[in-house]
Formats: sequence, structure tokens, C-alpha cells
Amino acid sequence: METPNNYVFIHGKNISHNTLAGSAVGPHMSIDKLFPALLECFGIILCGYIAGRTDMITESQAKGLGNFVSKFALPALLFKNMVVLDFGDVIWAFLWSVLVAKVTVFVLVCVLTLMMASPDNRYSKAGLYAIFATQSNDFALGYPIVDALYRSTYPEYLQYIYLVAPVSLMLLNPIGFALCEVQSWRQASHLQHNSLGILGIVVLQVLKNPIVFMVIVGIISHFALGERIPSVLSEFIDGLANSFGGTALFYLGLTMVGQLRKLTRDTGVALILLITAKLLVMPLVCKDMVDILDVGVNSTSPNHTSLSNFAFLYGVFPTAPSVAIYAGHYNMELEVVKKNQTFFFVFSLFFFFFFF
Amino acid sequence: METPNNYVFIHGKNISHNTLAGSAVGPHMSIDKLFPALLECFGIILCGYIAGRTDMITESQAKGLGNFVSKFALPALLFKNMVVLDFGDVIWAFLWSVLVAKVTVFVLVCVLTLMMASPDNRYSKAGLYAIFATQSNDFALGYPIVDALYRSTYPEYLQYIYLVAPVSLMLLNPIGFALCEVQSWRQASHLQHNSLGILGIVVLQVLKNPIVFMVIVGIISHFALGERIPSVLSEFIDGLANSFGGTALFYLGLTMVGQLRKLTRDTGVALILLITAKLLVMPLVCKDMVDILDVGVNSTSPNHTSLSNFAFLYGVFPTAPSVAIYAGHYNMELEVVKKNQTFFFVFSLFFFFFFF
Repeated sequence: METPNNYVFIHGKNISHNTLAGSAVGPHMSIDKLFPALLECFGIILCGYIAGRTDMITESQAKGLGNFVSKFALPALLFKNMVVLDFGDVIWAFLWSVLVAKVTVFVLVCVLTLMMASPDNRYSKAGLYAIFATQSNDFALGYPIVDALYRSTYPEYLQYIYLVAPVSLMLLNPIGFALCEVQSWRQASHLQHNSLGILGIVVLQVLKNPIVFMVIVGIISHFALGERIPSVLSEFIDGLANSFGGTALFYLGLTMVGQLRKLTRDTGVALILLITAKLLVMPLVCKDMVDILDVGVNSTSPNHTSLSNFAFLYGVFPTAPSVAIYAGHYNMELEVVKKNQTFFFVFSLFFFFFFF
Repeated sequence: METPNNYVFIHGKNISHNTLAGSAVGPHMSIDKLFPALLECFGIILCGYIAGRTDMITESQAKGLGNFVSKFALPALLFKNMVVLDFGDVIWAFLWSVLVAKVTVFVLVCVLTLMMASPDNRYSKAGLYAIFATQSNDFALGYPIVDALYRSTYPEYLQYIYLVAPVSLMLLNPIGFALCEVQSWRQASHLQHNSLGILGIVVLQVLKNPIVFMVIVGIISHFALGERIPSVLSEFIDGLANSFGGTALFYLGLTMVGQLRKLTRDTGVALILLITAKLLVMPLVCKDMVDILDVGVNSTSPNHTSLSNFAFLYGVFPTAPSVAIYAGHYNMELEVVKKNQTFFFVFSLFFFFFFF
């Protein structure tokens, strides 16, 4: 196994555009914390996978864990972090960069799928694939990794996770959902449904998403409560929020059971397209956009290099399991999305090890 | 609602044997942290109860959460804490006190049940009731409360939870199980089974308990690893251990669904006996034993008062849900145990508010 120093070196050579990066990465990202962080994430995911594989926790029981994570632990975590978020600390160029990168990849995947797919399901395919290529698993996987890597050097990077997640959920996913709805109505030939109906359903679905809902509630509370959680509530919120990390990773492992076996069959254009988009285009566009947009006082400091590396890292995070849930909702392409997701996860892993 | 100061006053008046206590309690136990701590515990339990009641998480899905808590999160928490435990800090008189108190209550309940119960199931009743009266819900409920109350003043009190729990699990529960096994063989009239067979089954059952197993593994690792967890593993263990508190409380709430309605029916001798034993005898014996046994250099300091109050608090903790699982295993008295448990929980709550 290579030593942490080698990883820094490879990392510096491959993804840094200027010579500063190679030498600057060491002190800014705690590379010595990367292995414990990866062991935490993949160890707990493996525990979940084993528990699911040995039927210690059945598929129906796993849903209980999923409900706890998505409806209690994650909303508490989001609420807590939106309330205490320091907007003064935020480098907005970073958010713009990720937004531009996500929109680019979304449009690219959408247009390519519309051109290449068969006419009978091209809209829903385009919508789901585009969502798949842009929505990262920000909380279950991204949060613990960023926390472990930057806790001691740039703790403020963690807040970008909370700020970036709603971009996908509130802006891009709705467009994808709208494409799926268009498809369902085309197939059912319900001509009485107009575009206003589609819009209503999409908006309702977005607001019903607990992540979007809690981010909005959190931002309102941020101003109402004066940037701090009342001390009487803080233990309650913390109690739920602290249980998020471990439980979410474990659940991620559980949801992967039965999917690894299917990997060898039926790859194809969709798989290659999606993996290219998510794992190569997305991180590079994220990083380059930070290099282009972050031109203020910050641009020459080592802080800038660190931020642009963070943007690359963010781009690599695999897709969230919720995309498979959306796909199931539209009775569409569930297999391809699920298969891709697991393949993808494994691929990300190798990719991750290669670069870091 | 009364102010925190009133609680200190009532607390001082009621459970402290010397005048020092009333004035000394304030600075030693952070009473201002009690309300957030209680809100954390009972708020998360309420969330779990609501989730179960509204069928957001069904009874079968709840088992998945239970398995995660008991087979992954709790073992990780125990392992971590046994490895870093500082045996030099432990006041052994406290452990002896709790042990004597538990044995007293166990024998008392056992003998009374054997005298009063009908002959056809007196052994299993005696075993289960005695377990019920002595085993506290140390981890799901006791741990967060003790953590919140003593974190800033006596953080070392938390370790007594880890040390006391195995006393019940390894010493008293096996005797209770042995009584249950005696009952099953009496009823089945399998005369070929001898006492060696009973012993073997009981020992196997004790070792299969994940709490006992991890405490033993943890103590071995404590000496093997030199009182610290290897840094490469620490994030992994922490990730699982941190998710324990919130998830366990939530699961506790889920398991209470459907039991509160049954409370009004069928109380009786068993209920009164058990509640008296657990909520009145147990805390007072715990406290008095600390007063008697802790006679060293420590006995005149305010530290002593604080320790004896902690012993009382420990005695009040309600019974763990696992007792209902044992009862189910022996197809016996499940209803009485389950009913008692919830009644008991509510009763403890009032009791708790009354004293603190």
C-alpha cells in the first residue's frame, strides 16, 4: 500500500493546475485523516451490507432505518446547521461554480439522452439520467468525508454541503421531474392535463421533500432565532443530528444488497454516458469553475487552491440512493439507475483512491 | 412549572441524608442542564412513539432499527468505552454498593414471587420478575441523562454505567434465566436434562448477549491496545458509537406503541410488587449502600454526597426493553412484563420529576 505522502504527490500531479497546489495540499487537507475517514465510511457501509446480505436485517426492516434517517435524523441535522450557518463566511464564488457545473452536466446529459434514446420513453430517461448525473450523495457519504478531511483545517467547508444540496433539489431535480411527468402524460394521453398541472405537481413534490422543507424552515429560523439554537432545544436537536452519520452510512450499505450481482449484465451506452458525466466531467467542471470565478482577494492564496481541490472532491461524490426512489416512482428505468448506482459507487471508490 | 431552583430544593430535602447535600447539589450536578437533557430523552422517545403510532414506521420495520442499535451501535459504544476506561479513577465502593443493592432486590423479589405465585409457573415468574426489578435501561435512557447531568462536573460517572451494566447481565440475569429453564423442563417433563444442561444453556445465552460479549472483548482490548483505540479505527468506532444515543431513544419510543392503552386493565399484586421493588427499594438501597461502604478518604467530601445522589438516580432508571424480549423467549408473562414496563416508564418519569 502506498504511503499517505505518495497520495499527496499523485494528487498534486494530477488535479492541480498550478505548482502551488502540490506543496500546498499537505497542510490544508489532513491527508493523515483520510484513511480513518474512508475506513469510517466504507467500514460502516460494509457493516450495513453484511447485515443485509446475512438477512440480519431484512429488506422490509431496512425501510424502518431509512425512514428514521430521512424523516428524523437528517431534518434535525439540516435544521441545526442552517440555524447556526455563518453567511458571512461563505465564499459565494464556490457556490456559483458548483451551480454552473451542475447545470452544464444536467443540460449535456439531457440533450444527449433526448438525441439518443428511443422516442417512447426519451423524456423520462432524459429527466432521470440528468438527475442521476448531478445529484451527489451529499449527506450520507459526503458529509462524513468532508468532516473528517477538513475538520481541523477548513471547518467552514462543511457548510457548503448544506448550501449546495438545495441547488440540486430545488432547481435541477424539479426540471427532471417535469420531464418525467411529461412522459407519463404522453403515454397516458390525458390531454386535459396542461402545463400548469405539471408545474403544480412538481412544486408540491419539491416542497414535500424533507431536505428542501427543513432547509427553508432552517433559514427562516436562522433569522428568527438570531443564529443560535435555544439552549433548551439544543440537546434534543443534537441527539437526533448526531445519530445521522453512522445510521445513514449503515443504511446505504443495506440498500446495496442484491445489486452487486447484477453488475456484469447489460451495461451499454447509458452506463458509459452517466459514468463519464458524473465522474469525469462533473469534478473537472466544478474545479475549473472555481478557478475562473474565484478571482477576488482570495484567488492567489493557498486557500484558493484548497477550495478548488474541495470543488473537485465534491464533484466525485457518488449519486444519492434517493434517485432510485424517484425512478421507482415513475416505474421507469429502475434497474439501470440502481445498477449504475452501485457500479458507480464502486467506480467512485477506485477513482477516489487513485486521486487521493 | 417550577423553576430549576425549586427542583434542587426538593431534591435536597427529600433524598439527602445530611445537611451538606442540599447546598452541595447545585454546583455538582448541572441542574440547568437537566431540562435540556430530559427534553432530549423524552422528546426523541416521543418522536419514536409518534412515528410508530402513525404507522410511519411499522412494527416489523422497527425491528431493523432495533437490530442496528443492539448489534452495531451499542457494541461499538461499549468497545470504545471499555478500551479507554481509566480503572484508576473508579471508586469501587460505588460498584459494590450497586451490586449489593441489586442482589438484595433480586433475592427479595425472587423469594416473594416463589411464595405468592401459583405452583404451575412460579419458577419462571420468579426469574423474570427478579430480572425485571434489577435490570435498568442503562444505555438507551441512563447514558444520555447521566451524560447531560454530569458531563461538566463529574464526567467519570459515565463509566459506572459501563461497569454496572455487566453486573446485571453476567451475574443476576443468568440466575433468572436458569429459573426459567427449570420451569420449561418441569413443564415438558424432559427428565433426561440435568443441571449441567441448564448451566450450559445459560452460559451460552449469556455469552451470546452482545453487551456481555463486547464488554469482555473491550476489557481484553483495553490491555492489548494500551488504553487507546488505534487512530485508524477510531473514526469507524466513533461513527457507529455516536449514532447510538438518538437511535436508541427513538427505538424505545417505537417499542412503546400499543402498550399505553393496555395500562388500565389487569393491575394487581405483580405490578405493585415490581414497582415497589424497582422504584422505592432499589434507589434507597443503592444510596444507603454508598453511604455505608464509601468510608475512605472520600467519605467526608462533597464528592461523596454527589456519588450517593448518583447512586439514587441510577436506582430510579426504568427497566430495559430487553426484558420483554427474554420474556417472549420463554413464552411467559409477556403481557405483564410489557405492561409493567410502560407503566413503569411513565411512573419513573413522574418520580423523576418529583425528586429533581
